[in-house]
Amino acid sequence: MEKSRIEKQFDFIKEIDKEKFIIRQTYLSDARKKENDAEHAWHMAIMTVMLSEYANSEIDVLKTMTMLLIHDIVEIDAGDTYAYDEEAKKTQAEREMKAAKRIFGLLPEDQGEKMMNLWLEFESGETAEAKFAHTMDNIQPAMLNDATDGKAWVEHIVHLHSILNRNKNTADGSKKLWEYSRDNFIMPNVEKGRIIND
Amino acid sequence: MEKSRIEKQFDFIKEIDKEKFIIRQTYLSDARKKENDAEHAWHMAIMTVMLSEYANSEIDVLKTMTMLLIHDIVEIDAGDTYAYDEEAKKTQAEREMKAAKRIFGLLPEDQGEKMMNLWLEFESGETAEAKFAHTMDNIQPAMLNDATDGKAWVEHIVHLHSILNRNKNTADGSKKLWEYSRDNFIMPNVEKGRIIND
Repeated sequence: MEKSRIEKQFDFIKEIDKEKFIIRQTYLSDARKKENDAEHAWHMAIMTVMLSEYANSEIDVLKTMTMLLIHDIVEIDAGDTYAYDEEAKKTQAEREMKAAKRIFGLLPEDQGEKMMNLWLEFESGETAEAKFAHTMDNIQPAMLNDATDGKAWVEHIVHLHSILNRNKNTADGSKKLWEYSRDNFIMPNVEKGRIIND
Repeated sequence: MEKSRIEKQFDFIKEIDKEKFIIRQTYLSDARKKENDAEHAWHMAIMTVMLSEYANSEIDVLKTMTMLLIHDIVEIDAGDTYAYDEEAKKTQAEREMKAAKRIFGLLPEDQGEKMMNLWLEFESGETAEAKFAHTMDNIQPAMLNDATDGKAWVEHIVHLHSILNRNKNTADGSKKLWEYSRDNFIMPNVEKGRIIND
């Protein structure tokens, strides 16, 4: 017997609890506990409310928040791929697509399709909302890394060119926020030798 | 010299990282780790996207999500008050108001006022959005408690009358979701003796 609409919705809602166990490389502001995907998404959703006024083009705030809240759900199956792990990044797209199909597939068809499309829109990074979401996704960890004296950067021996490469599209969502992040979170840590200047 | 608008916004954004350290009484689905406020808020924001169709009255989804994302920020200063701790609940309102003034006060005035009003609206529980937010706030832990074989209920020796009392307004946001939670998350655990039937 097929499950009812509300049962499918709660199947999805229960399943995504697992996102709270996906650990990222970023340290929280206590410089001890590492951040998980749910905490990261929560933080960026609030940042979007506070910072949408700096978007290069006007954005739909609800759409951007929803995109950010769900964009890492695929990592429940695919795991977190560290931004500077070139080997893992080769198989990332395939692993994540498979995960998206399974997890969004738990929802009633209309909602599952909507979430799949929102995730694909984020991945493509072409709309104003997706661009701004990527800006959030890049500046939030930079802010925490700075708040913890660059701990994650130091541990991973990160070079400035890698950070600039990762951030090559950050200004596409918000020039103002990229400049703020660069000048306040990244460059001071280059000066202090926590990011390798190459 | 007064801080710039963007500096104030990032002061707030950095400060709220501390919400990730506020531990609730609810166990996550692994039945080992306890949930923190940021994880809880993230979960409820997504639930709102998926379940708003069951609201008794039509709700503004963006407003409800924002309300849920920020409603526990006061606990950074005031701590989490367990739903069934009658002693702590006596001083809760005063502790939380002081916290709201300090933390929302970090923001630029217009945004701080907006967040304060949203938090007060949640606390009052009178609008359709606040009612639905309270429905989320009540059914999300019930769902996790059920998923962990009632672990938090058993540990705290919780009685059915306390749960029903806590949930006395849950149906005000959504009759359908209250009934689902009662029939699927609460009553089966009464039958299994994990909640004391009085």
